[in-house]
Amino acid sequence: MVDIALLGSGGGMPTPERFLSSLLINYKGRKILVDCGEGTQVSMKILGWGFKSIDVICITHGHGDHIVGLPGLLATIGNSGRTEPLTIIGPEGIENIVNCLRVIVPYLPYEINIIENPSESLYISGLTISALELNHSTPCIGYSFYISRKPKFDQEKAILKEVPKTLWNTLQRGEIVVCDGKKYEPSMVLGSERRGIKISFITDTRPISTIIDFIKDSDLFICEGTYGKNKDLDKAINNKHMTFAEGAELALKGGVKELLLTHFTPAMVEPELYKDNAASIFPNTILGEDRLIKTLVFRD
Amino acid sequence: MVDIALLGSGGGMPTPERFLSSLLINYKGRKILVDCGEGTQVSMKILGWGFKSIDVICITHGHGDHIVGLPGLLATIGNSGRTEPLTIIGPEGIENIVNCLRVIVPYLPYEINIIENPSESLYISGLTISALELNHSTPCIGYSFYISRKPKFDQEKAILKEVPKTLWNTLQRGEIVVCDGKKYEPSMVLGSERRGIKISFITDTRPISTIIDFIKDSDLFICEGTYGKNKDLDKAINNKHMTFAEGAELALKGGVKELLLTHFTPAMVEPELYKDNAASIFPNTILGEDRLIKTLVFRD
Repeated sequence: MVDIALLGSGGGMPTPERFLSSLLINYKGRKILVDCGEGTQVSMKILGWGFKSIDVICITHGHGDHIVGLPGLLATIGNSGRTEPLTIIGPEGIENIVNCLRVIVPYLPYEINIIENPSESLYISGLTISALELNHSTPCIGYSFYISRKPKFDQEKAILKEVPKTLWNTLQRGEIVVCDGKKYEPSMVLGSERRGIKISFITDTRPISTIIDFIKDSDLFICEGTYGKNKDLDKAINNKHMTFAEGAELALKGGVKELLLTHFTPAMVEPELYKDNAASIFPNTILGEDRLIKTLVFRD
Repeated sequence: MVDIALLGSGGGMPTPERFLSSLLINYKGRKILVDCGEGTQVSMKILGWGFKSIDVICITHGHGDHIVGLPGLLATIGNSGRTEPLTIIGPEGIENIVNCLRVIVPYLPYEINIIENPSESLYISGLTISALELNHSTPCIGYSFYISRKPKFDQEKAILKEVPKTLWNTLQRGEIVVCDGKKYEPSMVLGSERRGIKISFITDTRPISTIIDFIKDSDLFICEGTYGKNKDLDKAINNKHMTFAEGAELALKGGVKELLLTHFTPAMVEPELYKDNAASIFPNTILGEDRLIKTLVFRD
């Protein structure tokens, strides 16, 4: 089980209705923040999930509407009593951006480790974080977060493999045991792999084909829908963003379970008016709003 | 007549109840912004006074709660269509801070002129802006804004000085006229100086004695009151801030007309509970809240 909260659902500039790009993932009490636009701290304060337990901050790119809130948040995390290191992941150039922004918060009571454009998946705070280079007007990466699920205990298999009953619990916990000169491995008492929970977060970008594989089978695909109207496709192309319909096409091709559109242009006052432009392509579409919370569970 | 709006009345971190330090001054449609904490743009959007006409941004100091919103605001001002240069005033070091923060908004359609710790008053957008070095944990300056008032036309004086009636209007507008070989000056038809409107803004600092002269006779003295309780004086001393009572003492000694306390610590949920700690010293005290608007007029 994992909880997510969309802290800000707007793009460009913060408004009274929508703060800027930010998503909080809460897994077993540890937090991963994705983007930190203006208003992130206010939404976090309303949610009340706490600041101290943020272990990782994933930044999609260095445009103001995705990162302005970062230095203030880093200060608040410091004031919350955190002393353990914090990891910031971002695209190429993120280290310089973070270091520049820290001109206003030079002293923090914890270390910051910065990882630029990771080419391999990272296992942090119980999740596997993967990144994908996107196609925006500045280096930008999308993220996926995968929570693996332990296989079930398989009693028939354990008996077949002649595993002593006294070892079943230990092996089930994932430990290897050597007993009476024989080596017992967890796979001897466990069933086949089970699907975990996958969340993907794609903003800001044009709908490039590599996204489809990257978001494959996501339980929740959070995707930018900067423009609701289909006829704003030219704006989407010029500004390297997507329309609702383009986000829905990706969701369909990626075989995701649910699409959550976000990052709406402030010029679009009522995104609901255009929801059908996505839902007619991918029915299980919901529109983002600030502090929308979802709990994702393992499917059976 | 001048309008002011307190855009954010909190200190430290933004909360759902209070955005961070920011004040907007609107004089004849031109705007001066003082500080730009997180949430500034949201309050501005609610107010609806516009972004394009911000000519000057005065920053008190480079702590996050006073400047985090700056890069986002600069982008929004750019998107509003502004192409005229914009002036940023701040303490020593502000140029480096602004340049660092601009890592996320490197391209703007207007020039930025930066003035560090001005030793002389500046006349911009119809106001005279003065700065005073304060005593905080980082270089910090307070500001005063003065709108001068033209003297009244003095008919008796004009007749006494034998000014031809045909020149009265021109001289009253402030122009010098040479007529029939004789030089006429505005002072020949104008009465004595009249007091203008003075607004002063002092945060963050300990209550140093130079503040008293600097805020002298202000119509509105906007002052930090980070701590409401008198017994938090030790915290105020340690963190280089002020209590409500200290702000009120300054207001009293400065002979100001009205005191507006702001920059409340987020730990103080109900500043109203401590209002009397200021009002018992300086009765004409009001407590800041986000988007509190005041219209100041010339006194007669």
